Amino acid sequence: MQQVMVSPSEEMASYTLAIDGMGGDGAPDIVLQGIDIAAERHPLAKILLLGDEAVLGDLLLQYPRAARITTIRHASSVISMDMKPTAALRVKDSSMRMAMQAVTTGEAQGVVSAGNSGAMLALAKIVIKTLPGISRPAMAAISPTAKGDVVMLDLGANVNCDWRNLVEFAVMGDAFAKAVLGLNAPSIGLLNVGSEELKGDERLKVAAEILKESPLSKQFYGFVEGHDITAGTTDIVVTDGFTGNVALKTGEGALKLAFTLLQKVYTANFLAKLGYLLVRPGLRRMKEWLDPRRYNGAVFVGLNGVVVKSHGGTDGEGFAAAIDVAIDMVTQQFNKKISEGLVEIGSLTSRRAQAEKEVNHLVST
Amino acid sequence: MQQVMVSPSEEMASYTLAIDGMGGDGAPDIVLQGIDIAAERHPLAKILLLGDEAVLGDLLLQYPRAARITTIRHASSVISMDMKPTAALRVKDSSMRMAMQAVTTGEAQGVVSAGNSGAMLALAKIVIKTLPGISRPAMAAISPTAKGDVVMLDLGANVNCDWRNLVEFAVMGDAFAKAVLGLNAPSIGLLNVGSEELKGDERLKVAAEILKESPLSKQFYGFVEGHDITAGTTDIVVTDGFTGNVALKTGEGALKLAFTLLQKVYTANFLAKLGYLLVRPGLRRMKEWLDPRRYNGAVFVGLNGVVVKSHGGTDGEGFAAAIDVAIDMVTQQFNKKISEGLVEIGSLTSRRAQAEKEVNHLVST
Repeated sequence: MQQVMVSPSEEMASYTLAIDGMGGDGAPDIVLQGIDIAAERHPLAKILLLGDEAVLGDLLLQYPRAARITTIRHASSVISMDMKPTAALRVKDSSMRMAMQAVTTGEAQGVVSAGNSGAMLALAKIVIKTLPGISRPAMAAISPTAKGDVVMLDLGANVNCDWRNLVEFAVMGDAFAKAVLGLNAPSIGLLNVGSEELKGDERLKVAAEILKESPLSKQFYGFVEGHDITAGTTDIVVTDGFTGNVALKTGEGALKLAFTLLQKVYTANFLAKLGYLLVRPGLRRMKEWLDPRRYNGAVFVGLNGVVVKSHGGTDGEGFAAAIDVAIDMVTQQFNKKISEGLVEIGSLTSRRAQAEKEVNHLVST
Repeated sequence: MQQVMVSPSEEMASYTLAIDGMGGDGAPDIVLQGIDIAAERHPLAKILLLGDEAVLGDLLLQYPRAARITTIRHASSVISMDMKPTAALRVKDSSMRMAMQAVTTGEAQGVVSAGNSGAMLALAKIVIKTLPGISRPAMAAISPTAKGDVVMLDLGANVNCDWRNLVEFAVMGDAFAKAVLGLNAPSIGLLNVGSEELKGDERLKVAAEILKESPLSKQFYGFVEGHDITAGTTDIVVTDGFTGNVALKTGEGALKLAFTLLQKVYTANFLAKLGYLLVRPGLRRMKEWLDPRRYNGAVFVGLNGVVVKSHGGTDGEGFAAAIDVAIDMVTQQFNKKISEGLVEIGSLTSRRAQAEKEVNHLVST
């Protein structure tokens, strides 16, 4: 993730992130390493760190840069990685919940956790609540492409989505690409299948119609297919949570397959190993560029606060990348951009919903 | 595609494939090259070649091996690559249609075409018709994985699928893996998303329940995620046509991205180029292994005859690979295996469908 430019808004107004100190496989160590790295990049940030105050207090002593910007608040419980969301909701004093509560009260503007993803979404919907005007929050993330980066959503927050969700995802993806990728007018694609008789289903057609008439029309590219994601055909790819989750994981699996096979090629014989040594620096840069840690930081968009989910198994660098994303969103006024986008698109979606009601009424009488 | 073993059934009974000589970007040249290569591998095959008899007759003179096994039959029309399926259905004497008619009459046991995919599916459903017991045909294909090959379906024949389609896809995928991959008891995975609160939707749960009680239960692995496809976790991956199409194309796109980046690494400077030369043989083998031409030959399963779709832009080697797949399916009695599998699973699906009717009846009264 490129370093955040210290914008005038960042200089004038400092901000607070609530961080779950206990979530994730490597917590709390990777959390503090991450804060320490982030402290160097973002001297104006303030961190409210939730978790076991004795453990965190001790650890903080080892990270003076982190210590400079961090306040610890005690939380008695931890949401474990295998806890079901319904169970997680019943734990009132978890580090994850208390971090979100700090956002609800306005004490913090964003929350970062590497903990249980399902619990995070369930808790965020209850504690931080959905942004007014949004029907369903989505999970968004950045992936590498041949032409830079692509924002994809929904990556798994919602299995079934109607045309309204898809249109809102487009608005949120637009705000996200502007806030985090720094793009002025990011192009938007709706993920579909290519064959003529199978132009996706009705929801995709309706969503496309609305986007074509909306203020996003200049940015709306149209339908894209699976291979367009990594080709970087558009800056944003919108789809339902099931398809998005499958696409993301299939792409990651395919890249992993490529590296597995490359490994075999390079260790095949002496000449191959020699050849490997000569290309190693370039290969390392390529691996770094494709590294999920660089893109660490999936975001729950459409909530009434910035909520960033870091990979559960990440390290300090990865967690710092997630903090970068949260700071970008807070300082670039991500949620304000969504609200403005929703207002612009509001009359179109209302008219469509109204027309549907009338059709349904006619059909059923 | 590995060479087909000449089985006793193949030695005793020869077979005929109807081949569309005019379909595909490189037709008829690549078609004849493909037949020529296949003739070498399958001396017992008989080919009925449909298309412009003057053009094909001339070309056949250049391919003596193909000529030995090929009979030409004149077809006046050609289905173009951009023709809509409904338009294609109206063309009565296309090479594609006449090839399929040969299967309907029993003159041929399978058909191979590199032509318009949507037209092929539409024509096949009308001319060859669906196999008794199958609700909807699907498109299946073989993809590379870290542990060999995987069969995936549906890859785009059906956008919306219910649990019955998914169960039938499992039966057909099982028959396909046995016929073409030569596996005895291929493992079956249902593609799903991983998070606890989003265990896919109702259809996946019902399909999984039925498979767990069926004779396929020993082979049924359970749910798999996107990254499991290329990891080779199961031999077969079952999903709906929309998700399958997106997954296949996303995976292909990701591999293409890896090669694009590798290209940049290798041409970066002199040392890198030198290193490339040393690993080039291994890289070539890797590229060949991942080459879509090796897997050329998507199959429409669930039709009352073997129907193989070759990539439109393929070359002679690729078309020969598609012919290999068709021969495997014909000689390994692919459709008989499906019918047997359906009988085994029939009572489970009937009971479930009956139970659903009763519930719907209760709900609506």
